[in-house]
Amino acid sequence: MTTPVGRVACDLTVTVDGYAAGTGQSEERPFGEDGADGWGGRLHGWMFEQSEENRAELDRMTAAKAYVMGRNMFGPVRGAWDRPWNGWWGDEPPFHAPVFVLTHHPRDPQPMAGSTVFSFVTDGVEAALERARAAAGGGDVSVLGGATTVNQYLAAGLIDELRLHIAPFTLGAGTRLFDGVPALELERTQIRVASTVTHVTYRVLSRIR
Amino acid sequence: MTTPVGRVACDLTVTVDGYAAGTGQSEERPFGEDGADGWGGRLHGWMFEQSEENRAELDRMTAAKAYVMGRNMFGPVRGAWDRPWNGWWGDEPPFHAPVFVLTHHPRDPQPMAGSTVFSFVTDGVEAALERARAAAGGGDVSVLGGATTVNQYLAAGLIDELRLHIAPFTLGAGTRLFDGVPALELERTQIRVASTVTHVTYRVLSRIR
Repeated sequence: MTTPVGRVACDLTVTVDGYAAGTGQSEERPFGEDGADGWGGRLHGWMFEQSEENRAELDRMTAAKAYVMGRNMFGPVRGAWDRPWNGWWGDEPPFHAPVFVLTHHPRDPQPMAGSTVFSFVTDGVEAALERARAAAGGGDVSVLGGATTVNQYLAAGLIDELRLHIAPFTLGAGTRLFDGVPALELERTQIRVASTVTHVTYRVLSRIR
Repeated sequence: MTTPVGRVACDLTVTVDGYAAGTGQSEERPFGEDGADGWGGRLHGWMFEQSEENRAELDRMTAAKAYVMGRNMFGPVRGAWDRPWNGWWGDEPPFHAPVFVLTHHPRDPQPMAGSTVFSFVTDGVEAALERARAAAGGGDVSVLGGATTVNQYLAAGLIDELRLHIAPFTLGAGTRLFDGVPALELERTQIRVASTVTHVTYRVLSRIR
Protein backbone atom coordinates (compact mmCIF):
# COMPACT_ATOMS: atom_id res chain seq x y z
CA MET A 1 0.00 0.00 0.00
CA THR A 2 1.41 3.39 -0.93
CA THR A 3 0.58 6.63 0.83
CA PRO A 4 -1.30 9.00 -1.50
CA VAL A 5 0.88 11.99 -2.29
CA GLY A 6 -0.78 15.40 -2.23
CA ARG A 7 -0.18 18.17 -4.68
CA VAL A 8 2.35 20.89 -4.20
CA ALA A 9 0.53 24.12 -4.86
CA CYS A 10 1.67 27.67 -4.76
CA ASP A 11 -0.58 30.62 -3.98
CA LEU A 12 0.88 33.96 -4.95
CA THR A 13 -0.63 37.39 -5.35
CA VAL A 14 1.08 39.32 -8.10
CA THR A 15 0.74 42.51 -10.11
CA VAL A 16 -0.07 42.36 -13.82
CA ASP A 17 3.68 42.58 -14.46
CA GLY A 18 4.34 39.67 -12.11
CA TYR A 19 5.72 41.36 -9.02
CA ALA A 20 4.93 39.91 -5.60
CA ALA A 21 6.66 42.72 -3.71
CA GLY A 22 8.31 46.04 -4.45
CA THR A 23 11.88 47.03 -3.67
CA GLY A 24 13.08 48.06 -0.20
CA GLN A 25 11.22 45.67 2.08
CA SER A 26 11.39 46.45 5.78
CA GLU A 27 9.53 45.67 8.99
CA GLU A 28 7.41 48.77 8.52
CA ARG A 29 6.83 48.02 4.84
CA PRO A 30 6.77 44.24 4.30
CA PHE A 31 5.87 44.61 0.63
CA GLY A 32 8.53 47.21 -0.07
CA GLU A 33 8.47 50.93 -0.62
CA ASP A 34 4.93 52.12 -0.88
CA GLY A 35 3.44 54.26 -3.54
CA ALA A 36 0.62 56.66 -2.78
CA ASP A 37 -1.40 54.12 -0.84
CA GLY A 38 0.74 51.06 -0.37
CA TRP A 39 1.53 48.01 -2.50
CA GLY A 40 0.72 45.70 0.38
CA GLY A 41 -2.89 46.85 0.53
CA ARG A 42 -3.22 46.96 -3.23
CA LEU A 43 -1.88 43.45 -3.58
CA HIS A 44 -3.54 41.74 -0.65
CA GLY A 45 -6.72 43.70 -0.14
CA TRP A 46 -8.65 40.85 -1.79
CA MET A 47 -7.79 38.63 1.22
CA PHE A 48 -8.93 41.13 3.82
CA GLU A 49 -11.37 43.83 2.70
CA GLN A 50 -12.89 41.47 0.11
CA SER A 51 -12.59 38.22 2.02
CA GLU A 52 -16.23 37.18 1.60
CA GLU A 53 -16.15 37.60 -2.16
CA ASN A 54 -12.93 35.61 -2.34
CA ARG A 55 -13.90 32.91 0.16
CA ALA A 56 -13.38 30.01 -2.28
CA GLU A 57 -9.78 30.99 -3.00
CA LEU A 58 -9.02 31.68 0.65
CA ASP A 59 -10.48 28.32 1.68
CA ARG A 60 -8.44 26.55 -0.95
CA MET A 61 -5.32 28.35 0.23
CA THR A 62 -5.86 27.35 3.86
CA ALA A 63 -6.77 23.75 2.98
CA ALA A 64 -3.13 22.71 2.73
CA LYS A 65 -1.87 20.36 5.42
CA ALA A 66 1.60 21.93 5.53
CA TYR A 67 3.26 25.08 4.21
CA VAL A 68 6.64 26.29 3.05
CA MET A 69 7.70 29.93 3.01
CA GLY A 70 10.87 31.91 2.47
CA ARG A 71 12.48 33.83 5.26
CA ASN A 72 11.68 37.10 3.51
CA MET A 73 8.02 36.29 3.76
CA PHE A 74 8.33 35.16 7.37
CA GLY A 75 9.85 38.43 8.46
CA PRO A 76 12.33 41.24 8.01
CA VAL A 77 14.94 39.83 10.44
CA ARG A 78 18.17 39.04 8.58
CA GLY A 79 21.15 37.04 9.71
CA ALA A 80 21.02 35.23 13.07
CA TRP A 81 17.74 35.14 15.02
CA ASP A 82 19.00 37.76 17.44
CA ARG A 83 15.62 39.20 18.35
CA PRO A 84 12.13 37.79 18.83
CA TRP A 85 10.17 37.41 15.63
CA ASN A 86 7.26 35.02 15.09
CA GLY A 87 5.98 36.22 11.73
CA TRP A 88 3.59 38.94 10.61
CA TRP A 89 0.44 37.11 11.65
CA GLY A 90 0.10 37.65 15.40
CA ASP A 91 -0.30 34.97 18.08
CA GLU A 92 -2.67 32.79 16.06
CA PRO A 93 -1.49 32.68 12.44
CA PRO A 94 -4.04 31.63 9.82
CA PHE A 95 -2.15 28.47 8.78
CA HIS A 96 -3.27 26.05 11.53
CA ALA A 97 -0.66 23.56 10.30
CA PRO A 98 3.12 23.08 10.18
CA VAL A 99 4.94 25.88 8.35
CA PHE A 100 8.50 25.27 7.19
CA VAL A 101 10.54 28.47 6.94
CA LEU A 102 13.66 28.50 4.74
CA THR A 103 16.62 30.11 6.47
CA HIS A 104 20.39 29.88 6.71
CA HIS A 105 20.27 30.25 10.49
CA PRO A 106 19.15 27.38 12.74
CA ARG A 107 16.35 28.06 15.21
CA ASP A 108 14.14 25.83 17.37
CA PRO A 109 10.57 25.20 16.24
CA GLN A 110 8.14 27.89 17.34
CA PRO A 111 4.65 26.65 18.23
CA MET A 112 1.87 29.22 17.96
CA ALA A 113 -1.77 29.25 18.98
CA GLY A 114 -4.20 27.37 16.72
CA SER A 115 -1.82 24.51 15.71
CA THR A 116 0.55 26.55 13.59
CA VAL A 117 4.15 25.51 14.24
CA PHE A 118 6.96 27.38 12.51
CA SER A 119 9.92 25.08 11.85
CA PHE A 120 13.16 26.41 10.46
CA VAL A 121 14.91 24.53 7.68
CA THR A 122 18.55 25.26 6.91
CA ASP A 123 19.28 22.63 4.28
CA GLY A 124 17.48 24.03 1.25
CA VAL A 125 14.24 24.02 -0.71
CA GLU A 126 14.10 20.29 -1.41
CA ALA A 127 14.63 19.40 2.24
CA ALA A 128 11.94 21.88 3.29
CA LEU A 129 9.48 20.40 0.82
CA GLU A 130 10.32 16.87 1.95
CA ARG A 131 9.58 17.82 5.54
CA ALA A 132 6.36 19.56 4.52
CA ARG A 133 5.25 16.52 2.51
CA ALA A 134 5.92 14.25 5.46
CA ALA A 135 4.04 16.60 7.79
CA ALA A 136 1.11 16.81 5.36
CA GLY A 137 0.73 13.02 5.40
CA GLY A 138 -0.62 12.76 1.86
CA GLY A 139 -2.44 16.10 2.02
CA ASP A 140 -1.58 19.12 -0.09
CA VAL A 141 1.45 21.28 0.55
CA SER A 142 1.35 24.96 -0.28
CA VAL A 143 4.37 27.12 -1.03
CA LEU A 144 3.29 30.55 0.15
CA GLY A 145 6.06 32.76 -1.18
CA GLY A 146 7.69 35.10 -1.57
CA ALA A 147 8.39 35.12 -5.27
CA THR A 148 12.08 34.27 -4.77
CA THR A 149 11.13 31.08 -2.96
CA VAL A 150 8.43 30.21 -5.51
CA ASN A 151 10.93 30.74 -8.32
CA GLN A 152 13.36 28.30 -6.72
CA TYR A 153 10.64 25.66 -6.50
CA LEU A 154 9.47 26.31 -10.05
CA ALA A 155 13.03 26.10 -11.38
CA ALA A 156 13.47 22.80 -9.55
CA GLY A 157 10.27 21.46 -11.12
CA LEU A 158 8.64 20.95 -7.72
CA ILE A 159 5.36 22.88 -8.15
CA ASP A 160 2.29 21.04 -9.49
CA GLU A 161 -0.19 23.88 -9.39
CA LEU A 162 0.31 27.62 -9.56
CA ARG A 163 -2.58 29.71 -8.22
CA LEU A 164 -2.08 33.30 -9.18
CA HIS A 165 -4.14 36.15 -7.79
CA ILE A 166 -3.56 39.04 -10.16
CA ALA A 167 -4.08 42.58 -8.87
CA PRO A 168 -4.83 45.31 -11.45
CA PHE A 169 -1.69 47.40 -11.36
CA THR A 170 1.95 47.16 -12.32
CA LEU A 171 5.00 47.82 -10.14
CA GLY A 172 7.87 47.98 -12.63
CA ALA A 173 10.43 46.80 -10.06
CA GLY A 174 10.75 44.44 -7.11
CA THR A 175 10.65 40.69 -6.68
CA ARG A 176 9.17 39.10 -9.78
CA LEU A 177 7.54 35.74 -10.22
CA PHE A 178 9.26 33.61 -12.93
CA ASP A 179 12.49 35.60 -12.72
CA GLY A 180 15.21 33.06 -13.56
CA VAL A 181 12.71 30.25 -14.11
CA PRO A 182 13.17 28.25 -17.33
CA ALA A 183 10.39 28.02 -19.93
CA LEU A 184 7.41 26.01 -18.68
CA GLU A 185 4.44 24.44 -20.37
CA LEU A 186 1.30 25.33 -18.40
CA GLU A 187 -2.35 24.38 -18.53
CA ARG A 188 -4.91 26.90 -17.35
CA THR A 189 -7.27 24.77 -15.27
CA GLN A 190 -9.41 27.38 -13.56
CA ILE A 191 -10.14 31.07 -13.70
CA ARG A 192 -12.42 33.24 -11.61
CA VAL A 193 -12.95 36.93 -12.09
CA ALA A 194 -13.45 38.76 -8.78
CA SER A 195 -14.22 42.46 -8.51
CA THR A 196 -10.60 43.55 -8.52
CA VAL A 197 -8.30 40.51 -8.69
CA THR A 198 -8.32 37.75 -11.29
CA HIS A 199 -7.75 34.25 -9.90
CA VAL A 200 -6.00 31.99 -12.40
CA THR A 201 -4.86 28.45 -11.70
CA TYR A 202 -2.25 26.80 -13.91
CA ARG A 203 -1.11 23.23 -13.79
CA VAL A 204 2.63 23.06 -14.41
CA LEU A 205 3.08 20.41 -17.10
CA SER A 206 6.75 20.33 -17.95
CA ARG A 207 9.82 22.30 -18.79
CA ILE A 208 9.90 23.31 -22.43
CA ARG A 209 13.70 23.43 -22.62
CA MET B 1 -16.44 71.76 -33.22
CA THR B 2 -13.76 69.33 -32.14
CA THR B 3 -12.89 66.12 -33.90
CA PRO B 4 -13.64 63.10 -31.69
CA VAL B 5 -10.41 61.47 -30.65
CA GLY B 6 -10.26 57.67 -30.78
CA ARG B 7 -8.64 55.45 -28.22
CA VAL B 8 -5.09 54.26 -28.46
CA ALA B 9 -5.22 50.55 -27.87
CA CYS B 10 -2.53 47.97 -27.81
CA ASP B 11 -3.03 44.32 -28.71
CA LEU B 12 -0.25 42.06 -27.57
CA THR B 13 0.02 38.31 -27.23
CA VAL B 14 2.23 37.36 -24.31
CA THR B 15 3.28 34.36 -22.28
CA VAL B 16 2.22 34.03 -18.64
CA ASP B 17 5.56 35.61 -17.70
CA GLY B 18 4.95 38.53 -20.05
CA TYR B 19 7.20 37.74 -23.01
CA ALA B 20 6.07 38.71 -26.50
CA ALA B 21 9.08 37.11 -28.21
CA GLY B 22 12.03 34.96 -27.27
CA THR B 23 15.68 35.78 -27.76
CA GLY B 24 17.49 35.53 -31.10
CA GLN B 25 14.88 36.79 -33.57
CA SER B 26 15.68 36.25 -37.25
CA GLU B 27 13.92 36.12 -40.59
CA GLU B 28 13.48 32.38 -40.22
CA ARG B 29 12.35 32.70 -36.60
CA PRO B 30 10.49 35.98 -36.16
CA PHE B 31 9.58 35.17 -32.55
CA GLY B 32 13.09 34.14 -31.58
CA GLU B 33 14.77 30.82 -30.99
CA ASP B 34 12.21 28.09 -30.96
CA GLY B 35 11.76 25.40 -28.39
CA ALA B 36 10.48 21.99 -29.33
CA ASP B 37 7.65 23.32 -31.45
CA GLY B 38 8.10 27.03 -31.80
CA TRP B 39 7.14 30.04 -29.67
CA GLY B 40 5.57 31.74 -32.65
CA GLY B 41 2.97 29.04 -33.06
CA ARG B 42 2.43 28.69 -29.34
CA LEU B 43 1.93 32.41 -28.96
CA HIS B 44 -0.10 33.19 -32.04
CA GLY B 45 -1.93 29.97 -32.76
CA TRP B 46 -5.10 31.53 -31.32
CA MET B 47 -5.18 33.94 -34.29
CA PHE B 48 -4.80 31.25 -36.91
CA GLU B 49 -5.74 27.69 -35.92
CA GLN B 50 -8.38 29.00 -33.50
CA SER B 51 -9.52 32.05 -35.45
CA GLU B 52 -13.24 31.21 -35.31
CA GLU B 53 -13.26 30.82 -31.56
CA ASN B 54 -11.39 34.09 -31.19
CA ARG B 55 -13.32 36.06 -33.81
CA ALA B 56 -14.42 38.82 -31.39
CA GLU B 57 -10.85 39.64 -30.38
CA LEU B 58 -9.59 39.48 -33.95
CA ASP B 59 -12.39 41.76 -35.14
CA ARG B 60 -11.63 44.24 -32.42
CA MET B 61 -7.95 44.14 -33.33
CA THR B 62 -8.63 44.85 -36.99
CA ALA B 63 -11.21 47.58 -36.27
CA ALA B 64 -8.52 50.21 -35.76
CA LYS B 65 -8.32 52.93 -38.38
CA ALA B 66 -4.53 53.19 -38.20
CA TYR B 67 -1.68 51.16 -36.70
CA VAL B 68 1.77 51.69 -35.26
CA MET B 69 4.43 48.99 -35.08
CA GLY B 70 8.11 48.74 -34.27
CA ARG B 71 10.65 47.85 -36.88
CA ASN B 72 11.37 44.58 -35.12
CA MET B 73 7.80 43.56 -35.66
CA PHE B 74 7.80 44.76 -39.27
CA GLY B 75 10.76 42.62 -40.17
CA PRO B 76 14.24 41.34 -39.50
CA VAL B 77 16.04 43.86 -41.77
CA ARG B 78 18.36 46.01 -39.65
CA GLY B 79 20.13 49.24 -40.58
CA ALA B 80 19.41 50.83 -43.98
CA TRP B 81 16.62 49.41 -46.19
CA ASP B 82 19.14 47.72 -48.46
CA ARG B 83 16.95 44.86 -49.58
CA PRO B 84 13.25 44.47 -50.34
CA TRP B 85 11.09 43.81 -47.29
CA ASN B 86 7.37 44.51 -47.04
CA GLY B 87 6.58 42.79 -43.76
CA TRP B 88 5.68 39.26 -42.77
CA TRP B 89 2.12 39.37 -44.07
CA GLY B 90 2.38 38.81 -47.83
CA ASP B 91 0.96 41.04 -50.58
CA GLU B 92 -2.30 41.77 -48.80
CA PRO B 93 -1.60 42.37 -45.10
CA PRO B 94 -4.55 42.04 -42.69
CA PHE B 95 -4.46 45.70 -41.58
CA HIS B 96 -6.39 47.37 -44.45
CA ALA B 97 -5.37 50.77 -43.09
CA PRO B 98 -2.30 52.98 -42.72
CA VAL B 99 0.49 51.35 -40.69
CA PHE B 100 3.25 53.55 -39.27
CA VAL B 101 6.53 51.71 -38.79
CA LEU B 102 9.11 53.10 -36.36
CA THR B 103 12.61 53.12 -37.85
CA HIS B 104 15.82 55.12 -37.78
CA HIS B 105 16.18 54.81 -41.57
CA PRO B 106 14.01 56.84 -43.95
CA ARG B 107 12.04 54.98 -46.59
CA ASP B 108 9.24 55.91 -48.96
CA PRO B 109 5.71 54.75 -48.11
CA GLN B 110 4.94 51.26 -49.35
CA PRO B 111 1.35 50.71 -50.52
CA MET B 112 0.11 47.12 -50.43
CA ALA B 113 -2.98 45.38 -51.74
CA GLY B 114 -6.17 45.87 -49.71
CA SER B 115 -5.52 49.49 -48.56
CA THR B 116 -2.62 48.76 -46.22
CA VAL B 117 0.07 51.42 -46.62
CA PHE B 118 3.31 51.05 -44.66
CA SER B 119 4.75 54.47 -43.81
CA PHE B 120 8.12 54.81 -42.15
CA VAL B 121 8.54 57.24 -39.28
CA THR B 122 12.02 58.33 -38.22
CA ASP B 123 11.21 60.93 -35.58
CA GLY B 124 10.09 58.79 -32.69
CA VAL B 125 7.10 57.22 -30.98
CA GLU B 126 5.15 60.42 -30.35
CA ALA B 127 5.47 61.52 -33.97
CA ALA B 128 4.36 58.09 -35.18
CA LEU B 129 1.31 58.18 -32.92
CA GLU B 130 0.46 61.71 -34.05
CA ARG B 131 0.53 60.60 -37.67
CA ALA B 132 -1.54 57.52 -36.88
CA ARG B 133 -4.11 59.62 -35.00
CA ALA B 134 -4.37 62.00 -37.94
CA ALA B 135 -4.74 59.11 -40.37
CA ALA B 136 -7.38 57.46 -38.17
CA GLY B 137 -9.53 60.62 -38.32
CA GLY B 138 -11.07 60.13 -34.88
CA GLY B 139 -11.09 56.34 -35.11
CA ASP B 140 -9.07 54.04 -32.88
CA VAL B 141 -5.36 53.59 -33.26
CA SER B 142 -3.74 50.28 -32.37
CA VAL B 143 -0.14 49.80 -31.35
CA LEU B 144 0.63 46.30 -32.53
CA GLY B 145 4.01 45.60 -30.99
CA GLY B 146 6.54 44.34 -30.39
CA ALA B 147 6.86 44.59 -26.66
CA THR B 148 9.74 47.09 -26.90
CA THR B 149 7.53 49.48 -28.83
CA VAL B 150 4.56 48.93 -26.52
CA ASN B 151 6.78 49.58 -23.50
CA GLN B 152 7.88 52.90 -24.97
CA TYR B 153 4.27 53.95 -25.44
CA LEU B 154 3.27 52.76 -21.97
CA ALA B 155 6.20 54.61 -20.38
CA ALA B 156 5.16 57.76 -22.25
CA GLY B 157 1.59 57.41 -20.95
CA LEU B 158 0.18 57.12 -24.46
CA ILE B 159 -1.81 53.86 -24.24
CA ASP B 160 -5.48 54.00 -23.17
CA GLU B 161 -6.29 50.33 -23.41
CA LEU B 162 -4.11 47.26 -23.15
CA ARG B 163 -5.54 44.11 -24.65
CA LEU B 164 -3.49 41.14 -23.60
CA HIS B 165 -3.83 37.69 -25.08
CA ILE B 166 -2.12 35.38 -22.62
CA ALA B 167 -0.83 32.04 -23.88
CA PRO B 168 -0.38 29.22 -21.32
CA PHE B 169 3.38 28.87 -21.12
CA THR B 170 6.38 30.80 -19.88
CA LEU B 171 9.52 31.72 -21.82
CA GLY B 172 11.93 32.89 -19.12
CA ALA B 173 13.81 35.19 -21.51
CA GLY B 174 13.21 37.46 -24.47
CA THR B 175 11.36 40.73 -24.99
CA ARG B 176 9.09 41.36 -22.03
CA LEU B 177 6.03 43.55 -21.76
CA PHE B 178 6.32 46.19 -18.98
CA ASP B 179 10.13 45.98 -18.92
CA GLY B 180 11.24 49.48 -17.91
CA VAL B 181 7.68 50.75 -17.61
CA PRO B 182 6.88 52.67 -14.41
CA ALA B 183 4.14 51.52 -12.01
CA LEU B 184 0.67 51.88 -13.53
CA GLU B 185 -2.81 51.84 -12.11
CA LEU B 186 -5.00 49.60 -14.31
CA GLU B 187 -8.64 48.69 -14.46
CA ARG B 188 -9.62 45.27 -15.78
CA THR B 189 -12.54 46.06 -18.08
CA GLN B 190 -13.04 42.78 -19.92
CA ILE B 191 -11.94 39.19 -19.74
CA ARG B 192 -12.75 36.24 -21.95
CA VAL B 193 -11.50 32.74 -21.45
CA ALA B 194 -10.85 30.95 -24.75
CA SER B 195 -9.75 27.34 -25.01
CA THR B 196 -6.04 28.10 -24.71
CA VAL B 197 -5.49 31.87 -24.43
CA THR B 198 -7.01 34.22 -21.88
CA HIS B 199 -8.06 37.61 -23.29
CA VAL B 200 -7.77 40.38 -20.70
CA THR B 201 -8.41 44.05 -21.38
CA TYR B 202 -7.06 46.69 -19.03
CA ARG B 203 -7.76 50.38 -19.12
CA VAL B 204 -4.61 52.29 -18.22
CA LEU B 205 -5.68 54.79 -15.56
CA SER B 206 -2.55 56.60 -14.44
CA ARG B 207 1.02 56.28 -13.33
CA ILE B 208 1.28 55.36 -9.66
CA ARG B 209 4.65 57.05 -9.23
